[in-house]
Amino acid sequence: METDSVNDAIAKPATDRTRVRRIAENARYDRATLHAIVDAAYLCHVAFADDAGTHCIPTACWREQDHLYIHGSNGGRLIKLLQKGTQACVTITHLDGLVLARSAFNHSMNYRSAVVYGSFEAVHDKRGAMAAFMEHIAVGRQAEIRAGNAKEFAATTVMRIALNEAACKVRSGPPVDDEADLQHPVWAGVLPLVAGRAPPIPDARCSEAPPGYVKQWV
Amino acid sequence: METDSVNDAIAKPATDRTRVRRIAENARYDRATLHAIVDAAYLCHVAFADDAGTHCIPTACWREQDHLYIHGSNGGRLIKLLQKGTQACVTITHLDGLVLARSAFNHSMNYRSAVVYGSFEAVHDKRGAMAAFMEHIAVGRQAEIRAGNAKEFAATTVMRIALNEAACKVRSGPPVDDEADLQHPVWAGVLPLVAGRAPPIPDARCSEAPPGYVKQWV
Repeated sequence: METDSVNDAIAKPATDRTRVRRIAENARYDRATLHAIVDAAYLCHVAFADDAGTHCIPTACWREQDHLYIHGSNGGRLIKLLQKGTQACVTITHLDGLVLARSAFNHSMNYRSAVVYGSFEAVHDKRGAMAAFMEHIAVGRQAEIRAGNAKEFAATTVMRIALNEAACKVRSGPPVDDEADLQHPVWAGVLPLVAGRAPPIPDARCSEAPPGYVKQWV
Repeated sequence: METDSVNDAIAKPATDRTRVRRIAENARYDRATLHAIVDAAYLCHVAFADDAGTHCIPTACWREQDHLYIHGSNGGRLIKLLQKGTQACVTITHLDGLVLARSAFNHSMNYRSAVVYGSFEAVHDKRGAMAAFMEHIAVGRQAEIRAGNAKEFAATTVMRIALNEAACKVRSGPPVDDEADLQHPVWAGVLPLVAGRAPPIPDARCSEAPPGYVKQWV
């Protein structure tokens, strides 16, 4: 079955570069894990190199099928370099908790991370892509806002990178202590971190009623 | 006064590499902003290059005075490369909210980010540094746990990078719409994102009472 073969293809490292070495039992190479990590993110970190060195820049992102998308001003360094096909590494990390073990060196963190290697390509259907971005931010909002005009779209570049050469790493669950440390008299467990939301703050000049995605934010 | 001259020195870009170009009014070059962004983080993204390309790896971090610290296994790729003095870029990003404007292209995000350039150096006082790391995770816990032994310390490398060549970028507040869009009939404002905490999860084999930093977690 085609779907199975696709899943199989990505369930092992795509390249040597994406084979996780450290704590390899936390590695995940399946598409579902990768997609879930990307979909849970509003931003990613894009690393790339130029004559001035190696850089790491945070930028908004979203996913469509098997690509991660970003956008930026045509004149920005990031966009100009990525347009040249510069190799990039895109990383997304969600921190899920502090793992407090009985011994210092068994402390850890629970997290879900994805690392994607490749080159970005320019996206021609900018309107479709930016609508998908808005859908990622707030479902249904695209139909409510003043849409982008020709000038705004002309000044913006949308780029995407294939989610092919990628590796995820996931840790969850309790601390893992050495047997000899289990009797050490200290609290052990997880302090969970979650993506929290606070009540929406309407703009001072806004008299419109909040739509569903605002009312349901918290 | 020495403190003032230090603050002045970092209140403008340290190098051309750290001069923010895009939306430069959001740039911050003062030490207080930089320290606050680092101190609010449990992890950073470290970008570096080797023969296989440019990489971006999430790792735990903490701050002591004017350095950002990380640690890792001696045998890990990241540590081995950084030991060679490889140029690195360390980025920390806190996402504070989705900024919903009346027009598509005035949507934005509220955030605090810090980008640090330089090379890491090995830290000789590993015990002191790891104790500071534990203090960053949970104040007072260092005295309660089974401390690291000689073998554990020997297998671990602690490294630090100076917070000298750094730039921060901060956006906060409401959407900024074009005057012509203010009458567009759509809700506008901010959907705030916060670092959330969920109730502590004691390890199944833990019968110790929770200390203050666990009881006060949520």
